[in-house]
Amino acid sequence: MNALRDLVKRLKPSGLDGFIISSSSNLSYLTGYFNPDAYLLVSPKGSIYFTDSRYAQSAKETLKGFLPVRIANGTVFSSIPRACSELGLKRIGFEERHLPYAEYKIIRQSLKLKSILVPTHGVIEGMREIKSPEELTKIKKALKITALAFEFIKGFIHPGLSEAEVAAELERFIRYQGARGSSFDIIVAYGPNSVYPHHNPTAKKLGSTGNVLVDLGVDYLGYKSDLTRVLFLGKINILARRVYALVARAQEIAIKMVKPGVSIGSIDAASRKYITSKGYGNNFIHSLGHGVGLDIHESPNIHSKNEDLLKEGMVFTVEPAIYLPGKFGIRIEDMVLVTKNGCEVLSGAVNK
Amino acid sequence: MNALRDLVKRLKPSGLDGFIISSSSNLSYLTGYFNPDAYLLVSPKGSIYFTDSRYAQSAKETLKGFLPVRIANGTVFSSIPRACSELGLKRIGFEERHLPYAEYKIIRQSLKLKSILVPTHGVIEGMREIKSPEELTKIKKALKITALAFEFIKGFIHPGLSEAEVAAELERFIRYQGARGSSFDIIVAYGPNSVYPHHNPTAKKLGSTGNVLVDLGVDYLGYKSDLTRVLFLGKINILARRVYALVARAQEIAIKMVKPGVSIGSIDAASRKYITSKGYGNNFIHSLGHGVGLDIHESPNIHSKNEDLLKEGMVFTVEPAIYLPGKFGIRIEDMVLVTKNGCEVLSGAVNK
Repeated sequence: MNALRDLVKRLKPSGLDGFIISSSSNLSYLTGYFNPDAYLLVSPKGSIYFTDSRYAQSAKETLKGFLPVRIANGTVFSSIPRACSELGLKRIGFEERHLPYAEYKIIRQSLKLKSILVPTHGVIEGMREIKSPEELTKIKKALKITALAFEFIKGFIHPGLSEAEVAAELERFIRYQGARGSSFDIIVAYGPNSVYPHHNPTAKKLGSTGNVLVDLGVDYLGYKSDLTRVLFLGKINILARRVYALVARAQEIAIKMVKPGVSIGSIDAASRKYITSKGYGNNFIHSLGHGVGLDIHESPNIHSKNEDLLKEGMVFTVEPAIYLPGKFGIRIEDMVLVTKNGCEVLSGAVNK
Repeated sequence: MNALRDLVKRLKPSGLDGFIISSSSNLSYLTGYFNPDAYLLVSPKGSIYFTDSRYAQSAKETLKGFLPVRIANGTVFSSIPRACSELGLKRIGFEERHLPYAEYKIIRQSLKLKSILVPTHGVIEGMREIKSPEELTKIKKALKITALAFEFIKGFIHPGLSEAEVAAELERFIRYQGARGSSFDIIVAYGPNSVYPHHNPTAKKLGSTGNVLVDLGVDYLGYKSDLTRVLFLGKINILARRVYALVARAQEIAIKMVKPGVSIGSIDAASRKYITSKGYGNNFIHSLGHGVGLDIHESPNIHSKNEDLLKEGMVFTVEPAIYLPGKFGIRIEDMVLVTKNGCEVLSGAVNK
């Protein structure tokens, strides 16, 4: 795999001769194989994959000819240091945001004074910011399934269905279309429930009027999509119509700015400035967006304090929102890909 | 909440005057409110709940009159130490298995030398081992929904359906019955796919004969169920019939031993000994079971090296298995509750 080769090349310039990977998304990225209970020791002298007996069979079959697999039942935190010693590794990086303190402690103690552990963060997350053509194909397929699901649910939704039933139908639909399942808890929020950005669908039944916020993402071969639309039942009230138009405009402002070299923070700031100028600044309570790929929330984070610049190949959501407690929330969320000269709205096929 | 009061009482005898909770299941247990991005500082001088703006509204409404909520956007790891200082806490416990090294480091640095962080593990997990009547009600409801789902799928399943479609129908069904969703990726494994204990459903279509292993759990108000049955299409072959009977007997042997005071390891050992005596010891590649509650895998772990004793109120799975690579896997999984004099098979309503 190219990603693993690239990582090995980065070690020496970073002053490392080994690297312990504990994030399961980063492991998927490096090996092309998803396993929630695995670790990878990477080094120029060889890399070793660790998992337990439940995954022994599938890991060995999937990684055959690519990586040696060691089965470490309950003792992975002594198996890893042992492998470090075998390979003679001295400065070993680890993912400080993905290794619990207890595991760090055991590995450090087992290594004794022979080698040192070096905390790192964002190394592989940084590599993952730029999507390869193969990754884009999977993300686009995830979005294609999401688009079909929105089309389906627009035809299916009707008063009397509960929020939870709408979510159930979406979950079933996307699996029939080839998705592994939803990539996060599907949000179906009717009326005042839509003011909670992460509302869990309830038994509350849809009435004949009001807004239904649907936030759906699917997992296709490990890659995620994330999309929000607000549907309206019956006549749309004047305030909702006005707020919807503001949010749509705030999104348009942001999307128009997206191109390589633009500061990430400036996009959030511009969208937020517009919403603030209309008097709703305090009702836009989260950041503008987030990267999407193997994780539903990954780098880059699209918030106003991020001074990094956009690069070609980044994929992220643009999701301005206005939440009016006691009334309703409007969020419009699309996914964009930074292209050479601007951006492509990957979810453009889904009507607003 | 009683659990939070109990925890506060345990602090002083443990030499602590504060405790930082970072496990979201433990947070749910202590507060009755699920939030994936929150922290709790517990102390006899007062406890404080930390979350970010996305959950501000729902946290404040849900915890009103019970816990003060602080909104810490991106700065929770400096907000927690600040609160520790305000309360004058000197010895602060933390959950070493649920706090990444990076977060530990930031909190420790912010506390400077004024107080010390004490690693702990299993404190709240130990409390959670014994289920309260309210928790049992939710677990039983989760199992009731699971039982209905198995009844439904036995009637629904037929050659030509894919593994993924069977999973899709199960996922839809349980949500219509009031579950929040499945409590782990539903396993539907046809024929040779059933040798992978954690198989993900594929597009592979069911044929007219062969076994279909279905491992399904549901989430009901945060509490989980976990149940495995093997269904057979057409005529059952002789080897499958024989292996099925062995696994069923191995399960029976284990369940008969369950009562307060029995060593946990001895149950796994007895079941394993039987399977080994029949020549399949190497094909039973995982432990006998695991506790179930707010987490799908929680304490107690039912493996042969666990020397702890069973206590009344524990709930766990008993799931012996035999996996024959290239052929099929048979696993039978039920959930039991340790009662005063023995045990109750909570999933007894589901036919084998």
